[in-house]
Amino acid sequence: MPKYTIGLDYGTNSVRALVVNVANGREVGTAVWNYAHGKEGVILSSDPNLARQHPADYVKGAEVTIVKALEDAAKAVKGFKPEQVIGIGVDTTGSTPLPVDENGRPLAFQKRFAKEPAAMAWLWKDHTGIEEAEEITALAKDIRPQYLAKCGGAYSSEWFFSKILHCKRAHRNVFDAAYTWVECADWIPAMLTGNEAPDKYVASVCAAGHKAMYNDAWGGYPDAQFLSILDPALGKLRERLKDKAHAVDTRAGALSRAWAKKTGLPEGIPVAVAAFDAHLGAVGVGIRPGIFARIVGTSSCDMAVASMDKPPADIPGLCGIVPGSILPGAIGLEAGQSAVGDIFNWFVNYLEPGGAKAGSHEALTKEAAKLAPGASGLLALDWNNGNRTILVDQRLTGVLLGQTLYTTPAEIYRALIEATGFGALTIINRFEEYGVPIRRVLNCGGIAEKNPLVMQIFADIMGRTMEISRSAQTCALGAAIAGAVVAGKKAGGYSSFSAAQKAMTGLKAKKFKPDPKARRVYQEIYPLYKDLHDAFGTKDWNGNLGHVMKQLLEIRAKARK
Amino acid sequence: MPKYTIGLDYGTNSVRALVVNVANGREVGTAVWNYAHGKEGVILSSDPNLARQHPADYVKGAEVTIVKALEDAAKAVKGFKPEQVIGIGVDTTGSTPLPVDENGRPLAFQKRFAKEPAAMAWLWKDHTGIEEAEEITALAKDIRPQYLAKCGGAYSSEWFFSKILHCKRAHRNVFDAAYTWVECADWIPAMLTGNEAPDKYVASVCAAGHKAMYNDAWGGYPDAQFLSILDPALGKLRERLKDKAHAVDTRAGALSRAWAKKTGLPEGIPVAVAAFDAHLGAVGVGIRPGIFARIVGTSSCDMAVASMDKPPADIPGLCGIVPGSILPGAIGLEAGQSAVGDIFNWFVNYLEPGGAKAGSHEALTKEAAKLAPGASGLLALDWNNGNRTILVDQRLTGVLLGQTLYTTPAEIYRALIEATGFGALTIINRFEEYGVPIRRVLNCGGIAEKNPLVMQIFADIMGRTMEISRSAQTCALGAAIAGAVVAGKKAGGYSSFSAAQKAMTGLKAKKFKPDPKARRVYQEIYPLYKDLHDAFGTKDWNGNLGHVMKQLLEIRAKARK
Repeated sequence: MPKYTIGLDYGTNSVRALVVNVANGREVGTAVWNYAHGKEGVILSSDPNLARQHPADYVKGAEVTIVKALEDAAKAVKGFKPEQVIGIGVDTTGSTPLPVDENGRPLAFQKRFAKEPAAMAWLWKDHTGIEEAEEITALAKDIRPQYLAKCGGAYSSEWFFSKILHCKRAHRNVFDAAYTWVECADWIPAMLTGNEAPDKYVASVCAAGHKAMYNDAWGGYPDAQFLSILDPALGKLRERLKDKAHAVDTRAGALSRAWAKKTGLPEGIPVAVAAFDAHLGAVGVGIRPGIFARIVGTSSCDMAVASMDKPPADIPGLCGIVPGSILPGAIGLEAGQSAVGDIFNWFVNYLEPGGAKAGSHEALTKEAAKLAPGASGLLALDWNNGNRTILVDQRLTGVLLGQTLYTTPAEIYRALIEATGFGALTIINRFEEYGVPIRRVLNCGGIAEKNPLVMQIFADIMGRTMEISRSAQTCALGAAIAGAVVAGKKAGGYSSFSAAQKAMTGLKAKKFKPDPKARRVYQEIYPLYKDLHDAFGTKDWNGNLGHVMKQLLEIRAKARK
Repeated sequence: MPKYTIGLDYGTNSVRALVVNVANGREVGTAVWNYAHGKEGVILSSDPNLARQHPADYVKGAEVTIVKALEDAAKAVKGFKPEQVIGIGVDTTGSTPLPVDENGRPLAFQKRFAKEPAAMAWLWKDHTGIEEAEEITALAKDIRPQYLAKCGGAYSSEWFFSKILHCKRAHRNVFDAAYTWVECADWIPAMLTGNEAPDKYVASVCAAGHKAMYNDAWGGYPDAQFLSILDPALGKLRERLKDKAHAVDTRAGALSRAWAKKTGLPEGIPVAVAAFDAHLGAVGVGIRPGIFARIVGTSSCDMAVASMDKPPADIPGLCGIVPGSILPGAIGLEAGQSAVGDIFNWFVNYLEPGGAKAGSHEALTKEAAKLAPGASGLLALDWNNGNRTILVDQRLTGVLLGQTLYTTPAEIYRALIEATGFGALTIINRFEEYGVPIRRVLNCGGIAEKNPLVMQIFADIMGRTMEISRSAQTCALGAAIAGAVVAGKKAGGYSSFSAAQKAMTGLKAKKFKPDPKARRVYQEIYPLYKDLHDAFGTKDWNGNLGHVMKQLLEIRAKARK
């Protein structure tokens, strides 16, 4: 009788449950539920930096989607029974911490805080803690530089301690009411297993390592002395955080009776420790050493793993270097581009080029495909939303260079695609310079699914074949793989991620191989991209233009006041 | 009884005659005739560098337009009679040389050459002599650097000797049939006065000085030794060129009986030596020392004059520095931008932004006018058609910098306007650095006439009031002024250009004064423009990116093969 696992994928706007056949990765049932609170699931305010989620949506989302996905599976597979499900894995956004009480219950569930955004989950893209992030970065630079070496040289306003410290300063009543703070990634498995209590839940090393400066090398989370300098209350919080965080091959617990009852799943099946969506997405793509796993959509998440036996040096400009954050027993390396599809969307939706009919993605792609590499004379920088990896600088902006009096929309569209390819190549080169070889590039996500021209240009620019994941739901699939591993071989699952990935992941037959002629042209253009990249992006380049974008942004801020 | 003069304005596509009241500059009659040959008056071929005009159009154009303009004047002014016309002035494009026989008759009038483009007039924008221009530049750099110091450091393929040398090499039969070559500017007055014969026509110092390296300081045209090294035939041609070239206050002759008969004008009225359109346009705007006269249309011509008593040093990067080329007795300084309105036209016509309805000049101007200076964070370089002045480099291209995921078409449109303003300020600064003060900016041309937003932004960027010529036909008006000066005071004209300009030119009441607040913002942005300008435009800037555009153009040329 076939065995199944469930991947639960908590996104920004919705949650998805995916029922996967453990033997072959076949996705037999799925269901999506859009969060009920806020605008498309996100609670906003007049402060453009604020973005929260209501944890009630996490509870309802799991119930609704698991029940529906099981029904969907029963329709697709004759004789399918929920009893065949042997494990559950979870992925979430992050850093998305939420304040909880002594029992691990979210403060937002208390009547007095039901409508208080500070008591909800502070969504990954909440930037209210900008000042606190700068403060944390400055202190770490001063007394704990090792903390920053693993996370790109700066602690972000998107991350755990920036948010908590901001809550302490701006919403004292909420902060004082919280016993501790847990990541959404930690709270979902705790919820499913009845282990919400602060002494019971299991912390995810992916969340702790990438967002909270956790590292076994220095004893876990940042030390209490460091945190106490920021605020004595953070020092106190440190005592309530876990000593140890775990990879996705660890059980967070067993499915509780209550949740078995709600969903129809067997009580007691294991729930894996969660990880962030991109990390389990990379697992679902089939990541292993030598592979660059890319989730390419509006932005890109570019993941690699390195052996723990031969750990790479700290790679400057990487968002995160965390042992066990992607695959257990390997060092997880997280990189990415702040915008990929978003740049193409900007061009199509904001500039609306080509008059009434020639400006759709389809029309521009068709025209751009007819152009030879280099034939436009254009070159762009892919920084319309800043630069996440290598330069780690939000305050960078786009550049388009080379336009004449005859430059067309399709030429610009192609130049923007090429820019995102050059940006990705810059990340690959950085990995390789620091001893992490990139032999293959496996892609998933909306752009990888939908735009063959982009994939071909990426192949020509990166000089590597672009391979595409068979699954369109790699994050949920990766979570289901974690479910199969924590279920174990005896129960019908797997004893290792490599075995589970081999059976459950796959690639599409269509691959995009570099065209040698195009490759040669892009090898001529790339040094020019790199010159612009370094001139505008770095402070110490010989011909520094690094002040130009920054000063324009300062002038802009004044002009808009 | 009022006196009138006629300005004859030979453009690229048409010729215009303008009848002007000498006392007050009132334009009482006008007529335009589109050339009959080629595409909109320009003979083209499969070679994109080729652009010729048929001199038969010059003859017919004068006749048709003078007759019609006189009829037009008779309708507008009661009792107007052609006998009241006391002089004629002429402006033309250039360098537009044509080969002529021993009698000064264009070779194109011979039956055997009637359809031979090489025997026609080689229009200013003919670039078939690119290689010859490089050869002339190289030789001059080597042995006659003084020749280049007056014309921006490079001899252009658009100019006199490049075209003649190319004809010698590529069309030997035409070259051998030519007795000599005359500029269109020299041939039109010669035609009207019956002085076509090579020993009779009077050479224009504007044409000779700006396009043929003529300068009294070294004895007129380049010496025979120099020309003979290029080709012995050029050395021989030198003997047939004039010893002396003249300013527009010189009579080229008296209107011939034949032309009096054709047109109804009085026989014997004086015809002035011609000058190029932009130069007489500057006269028509009201140029004098301290004034920057700008003809702002698809491109800009930016003219200034300096006193001969205090001649400025050679100003690097200026297209031309020629005594007497604009006003007699003053040094004519010619600068310009390769594209102004053409850049806005590119954005509107090629990118067609804003979907179906928001992308017209009118709509974009309206939206752009609502934006505060600096509020977009954008900065552009105005090099979509290269850079004519300061850098003197066709092989430069456009830059747009600062775009985000929310940048709008109106923001880009405004940034492009600002870029052309910064480009003009760079020219003004260069003039002033070399001792040519610019106290006022007087504008004419399509952009000046039509777009108040552009004028206001120019005022804010240049820190000077933008004043607009009263006349929409400043080139023809300037020619009519020359006609009034050669007619002389006794005949009802003037004894000097300053007296004629005072009476015949004027400004619109509407002036655009710098807004101090906007000015301050642009003073912050301009240094950033200058950084980009120097980084991408010069070879010796500390942080040289000067290779970027050039290499992209080389890659483009290969890719398009």
